[in-house]
Amino acid sequence: MGEAAALPRNETGIAAITEILRQRLGDRLQTGRAIREQHGHTTTWIANQPPDAVAFPESTAEVAAIVALCAEHRVPVIPFGTGTSLEGHVNAPAGGICVDLGRMDRILAVHPEDLDAVVEPGVTRSRLNAHLRDMGLFFPIDPGADASLGGMASTRASGTNAVRYGTMRDNVIALQAVMPDGRVIRTGARARKSSAGYDLTRLLIGAEGTLGIITELTLRLHGIPEAMSSATCSFPSVHAACEAVIATIQSGIPVARIELLDALQVRAVNAHSRLGLPETPLLLLEFHGSPAAVAEQAAAFGEIAAEAGGTGFSWTASPEERTRLWQARHDAYWAALGLRPGAKGISTDVCVPISRLADCVAATQDKTAELGLVAPIVGHVGDGNFHTLVLVDMDDPAEIARAETFVGWLAELAISMEGTCTGEHGIGQGKRPYLVRELGPATAVMAAVKAALDPAGIMNPGKILP
Amino acid sequence: MGEAAALPRNETGIAAITEILRQRLGDRLQTGRAIREQHGHTTTWIANQPPDAVAFPESTAEVAAIVALCAEHRVPVIPFGTGTSLEGHVNAPAGGICVDLGRMDRILAVHPEDLDAVVEPGVTRSRLNAHLRDMGLFFPIDPGADASLGGMASTRASGTNAVRYGTMRDNVIALQAVMPDGRVIRTGARARKSSAGYDLTRLLIGAEGTLGIITELTLRLHGIPEAMSSATCSFPSVHAACEAVIATIQSGIPVARIELLDALQVRAVNAHSRLGLPETPLLLLEFHGSPAAVAEQAAAFGEIAAEAGGTGFSWTASPEERTRLWQARHDAYWAALGLRPGAKGISTDVCVPISRLADCVAATQDKTAELGLVAPIVGHVGDGNFHTLVLVDMDDPAEIARAETFVGWLAELAISMEGTCTGEHGIGQGKRPYLVRELGPATAVMAAVKAALDPAGIMNPGKILP
Repeated sequence: MGEAAALPRNETGIAAITEILRQRLGDRLQTGRAIREQHGHTTTWIANQPPDAVAFPESTAEVAAIVALCAEHRVPVIPFGTGTSLEGHVNAPAGGICVDLGRMDRILAVHPEDLDAVVEPGVTRSRLNAHLRDMGLFFPIDPGADASLGGMASTRASGTNAVRYGTMRDNVIALQAVMPDGRVIRTGARARKSSAGYDLTRLLIGAEGTLGIITELTLRLHGIPEAMSSATCSFPSVHAACEAVIATIQSGIPVARIELLDALQVRAVNAHSRLGLPETPLLLLEFHGSPAAVAEQAAAFGEIAAEAGGTGFSWTASPEERTRLWQARHDAYWAALGLRPGAKGISTDVCVPISRLADCVAATQDKTAELGLVAPIVGHVGDGNFHTLVLVDMDDPAEIARAETFVGWLAELAISMEGTCTGEHGIGQGKRPYLVRELGPATAVMAAVKAALDPAGIMNPGKILP
Repeated sequence: MGEAAALPRNETGIAAITEILRQRLGDRLQTGRAIREQHGHTTTWIANQPPDAVAFPESTAEVAAIVALCAEHRVPVIPFGTGTSLEGHVNAPAGGICVDLGRMDRILAVHPEDLDAVVEPGVTRSRLNAHLRDMGLFFPIDPGADASLGGMASTRASGTNAVRYGTMRDNVIALQAVMPDGRVIRTGARARKSSAGYDLTRLLIGAEGTLGIITELTLRLHGIPEAMSSATCSFPSVHAACEAVIATIQSGIPVARIELLDALQVRAVNAHSRLGLPETPLLLLEFHGSPAAVAEQAAAFGEIAAEAGGTGFSWTASPEERTRLWQARHDAYWAALGLRPGAKGISTDVCVPISRLADCVAATQDKTAELGLVAPIVGHVGDGNFHTLVLVDMDDPAEIARAETFVGWLAELAISMEGTCTGEHGIGQGKRPYLVRELGPATAVMAAVKAALDPAGIMNPGKILP
């Protein structure tokens, strides 16, 4: 049941560090059980492995001092943003010190002319966007949860509008980070591009805190589009919907979002929000641009959708109407839980080349049916990325086992289709068995990088690498 | 005079490897002086340091065997694409074996539905685009020279349309590479995004062959836009032109290219191509999209340009007219050389936040005037990136010294403006003194990664790191 093996603990070191940090940080070091458990994994079936203490630093210098001490005493350090990750990234299988970056939440600078902002890692995406709104700017990455920007960088997060704006990989200009020996580095300046040396920015993005702690981010901003339009369309099958997606992307329509809900997910939304959508696969789209451009783009999609057999095509540029059209997507998670009250929703994600998407989604539906699982699907389909939310009765060990079988089967299927076992959730503890299957000898290169930068293995142990 | 220090040579190893490779490769190992010198640096004032032999492998397995042998005998390996790099990347300061990837030039697969292609590293960008044209697809990165795609990845190349399509960093999905011990790895599959493990793709992009040899690239393709339009506008000053650039980017107009020519460069083009452009700073733009969208975008830029004091605004969507408007840009290099017949053109590039661009360009003009240098400027100004082509009399050591002073001064100026000493040319041998100035302690992290992956230091020694 998602039990990640505990790792050997350095009891002496942990005790020593806890005492030293208590003296330094006072009540900014917490060791109570509840707070420790809140800082272990809480979002899926992976068992909670709490740290021994939680530190709340307020500056890069404090983070550096904590890491240097932990390096000296060989005590694990687990960086923590908001704890919304899904694959056990914040668990402490060898115990150690959780570094909660929530108090490092200052927006240090916004440069409207340069379309960039410099922020501390604890700033959440919604707070940054609230701050930017009056300047006509926004930060596009939206993984769903109101995650911290440091955490989003560390898991290489993306979400609904990656198809237009890219992922965290594309929207971070530079980082400041504390390395595993306590050194502070800056990976770049504010230039929008650079060919100066190894891309340490991208090395830290997606490293899940195993190579250091991000303490400052320089982010790429975008102008809030002059106009937005939304469209929805129902399709007779997942294949027909995916055909429309492929044609839309190929034709160069710069969609800002293109999301798929499968028939089961639509049924859930109908029940949850009293909508009367046809219970067949549904595409939802958003377009950003000038008023004329978003009208033209929506109309162009309408033609493509009709050719692929779509029905009930509807589009609008009015904000209220947009909200109504996107209702089905916004409600997806809670609506899905409503399909099976009392069950826990276990979200797993894969990403495949878009030409394989329909086959992958259809096979997923067949497999969950065969295993007797209730598992609606929502996808960021412009990227070939989709999520299956398996609704699991956590009191039924046999069902949990079937759900685990499914998660592994889906990862293997995606890999066999030249895809990846995770498009945006990351490896954490949960997907470690599949990383080697996917990348083979490259994982040895990753291990060599890890050993070079963190020889004592203190940074977020038990994550990513086997 | 651009003399990079020679490094200690392993004569025994080089002799042994040359003999072994000659037996294995026959006439696909060349040791003649002319061919060796062609494979050393040839494009700027950096002195030519030829390798001891040039190997022409035809498969990944052959590259792996060569690298494994060189690792065993501790002999340097220098990867070579087309030799168009500008900072001495292909020099052999410790001698060794140049691996010319020109015969690995197969386009292995094009997947139109997935908008990707799989190619060998010796394929040049123009050959790829010729192959893709009939499918309605293109690969956008255009560094000017008809470079090889492996070389473009290795130097993190970009060019005129990076403002819209990104750089090589953004347009490579995955790589196959031979690591410094001869192991072959694959850094990812064909999924458009992934959160699976460390981003080894981005670690190799821009590593300039110091961490391995790229032997296969999976590239992101784009649909050829339905329509393109071009626009030009003259400005009374560099500041006025840069104001227009900032307003254009901020307003979200999705420009595909936005290029600046300074007054001296315009004068050169007028003389070279008998044009009658006002000899003031000139912006040239290109827009990609639907016919309605490119018309709207050109018109929107026209308004912005007028507000910034621009004159002579002109735009068109006809291909012949577009060529005419872009004439000044296409002719820039040869026209610049015409300013001073017999001189050598030394191209240096920096990149700064766009808000500092006007100051940086104006200071550059003042500095070259003060030093008595002839140095026209062309910039990919949507990214804050510009090139100064210093026209140097290579028989005048004092002038060469002044030009070198200028190159260092400009790198330092860009760094002081929160920019980078190179936006797209790379570090190579030429910019090594500035990498530490720019990134400080981060260079020690780069060195640690290098030492972990290439402990014997055989991969392209003397590049990037001090």
